[in-house]
Amino acid sequence: MADVIANMSMSLDGFVADPQDRIDHLFGWFGNGDVEVPTAVEWATFKTSEASAKMLRDAMDNVGALIAGRHLFDITQGWGGTHPMGVPVFVVTHEAPADWPHPDAPFTFVTDGVEGAVEQAKKVAGDKNVAVASTKIAQQCLNLGLLDGIQVDLVPVLLGSGVRFFEQLEGTTTLTGPEVVEGTGVTHLSYRIKR
Amino acid sequence: MADVIANMSMSLDGFVADPQDRIDHLFGWFGNGDVEVPTAVEWATFKTSEASAKMLRDAMDNVGALIAGRHLFDITQGWGGTHPMGVPVFVVTHEAPADWPHPDAPFTFVTDGVEGAVEQAKKVAGDKNVAVASTKIAQQCLNLGLLDGIQVDLVPVLLGSGVRFFEQLEGTTTLTGPEVVEGTGVTHLSYRIKR
Repeated sequence: MADVIANMSMSLDGFVADPQDRIDHLFGWFGNGDVEVPTAVEWATFKTSEASAKMLRDAMDNVGALIAGRHLFDITQGWGGTHPMGVPVFVVTHEAPADWPHPDAPFTFVTDGVEGAVEQAKKVAGDKNVAVASTKIAQQCLNLGLLDGIQVDLVPVLLGSGVRFFEQLEGTTTLTGPEVVEGTGVTHLSYRIKR
Repeated sequence: MADVIANMSMSLDGFVADPQDRIDHLFGWFGNGDVEVPTAVEWATFKTSEASAKMLRDAMDNVGALIAGRHLFDITQGWGGTHPMGVPVFVVTHEAPADWPHPDAPFTFVTDGVEGAVEQAKKVAGDKNVAVASTKIAQQCLNLGLLDGIQVDLVPVLLGSGVRFFEQLEGTTTLTGPEVVEGTGVTHLSYRIKR
């Protein structure tokens, strides 16, 4: 069955974006190598170290659906209708956008909360994983016991302020792992939630 | 010359203690292995994995002085007069304790701030490193440009709340590394500050 895995690039001090939602300092590793990793879209071909490329290819092979929050959907303009992972996207929102210009794209607007999104995404993913791409959704999944794993792409920078990956968590969560992949300008750490 | 290195055991969500200053969830790796690492005190012999033991022995060989804040000094009761690292300790405080029961111990109470403590600790450490063991001191050292390295012993747990390693930082700090050592129940990440 599909695992639900939250994945973010994070600074050593725990931020996934600066206070203006910029990610320049955190996404450098997607372009600092010479191994090309094509994605589902023309506007995004990653160029990473071999180690990161292998990790990315594995991730793309194993992810069957993605859950995002409305904020991420809005700031990326819905990835133009195709997420780089090339999988169906479930957007958790209070209300579907009125003017979404890609009605045929594999985007589902889920208005009944995170649990509904996870349920729908798992169905679509089949035996592949569901990736959670927004911090608030990841936090809610954790608190609801819906998360199976956490992948942190840990970037050697201290941002000092911004949007935290982990906040509003209820109680202590024990993890196992991590599996470690040492990239260039990034350390990939893959944890499992211990139940 | 001595490098100034901040070192803490930290949860994946960035905490070095829970809201009650407890560290149970973070210090398990000091006792979860079968390789004994003696310290300078009888009450603390570490038992870790071989990988962590090697890291700890290297650290103890290379640290010549330690800087702590008054809070840490108080909650540890001044380590009974001997820090496990077996090195002179410089305690940053507004006022030296009136009733310190170990007047002959190698403890110096520094009342003229972090810069003074770093200067004195470096002199004593000679060509060895100065370890910074308190979050607030580490943060001040970072903001003052006095820090050369950061060692995070990253523990696979999310605490949800508590005392953060990194807070009150001014601006963005670029790091290099990390050197990674995979222990059991801990991932040792050693970074350098990029100047």
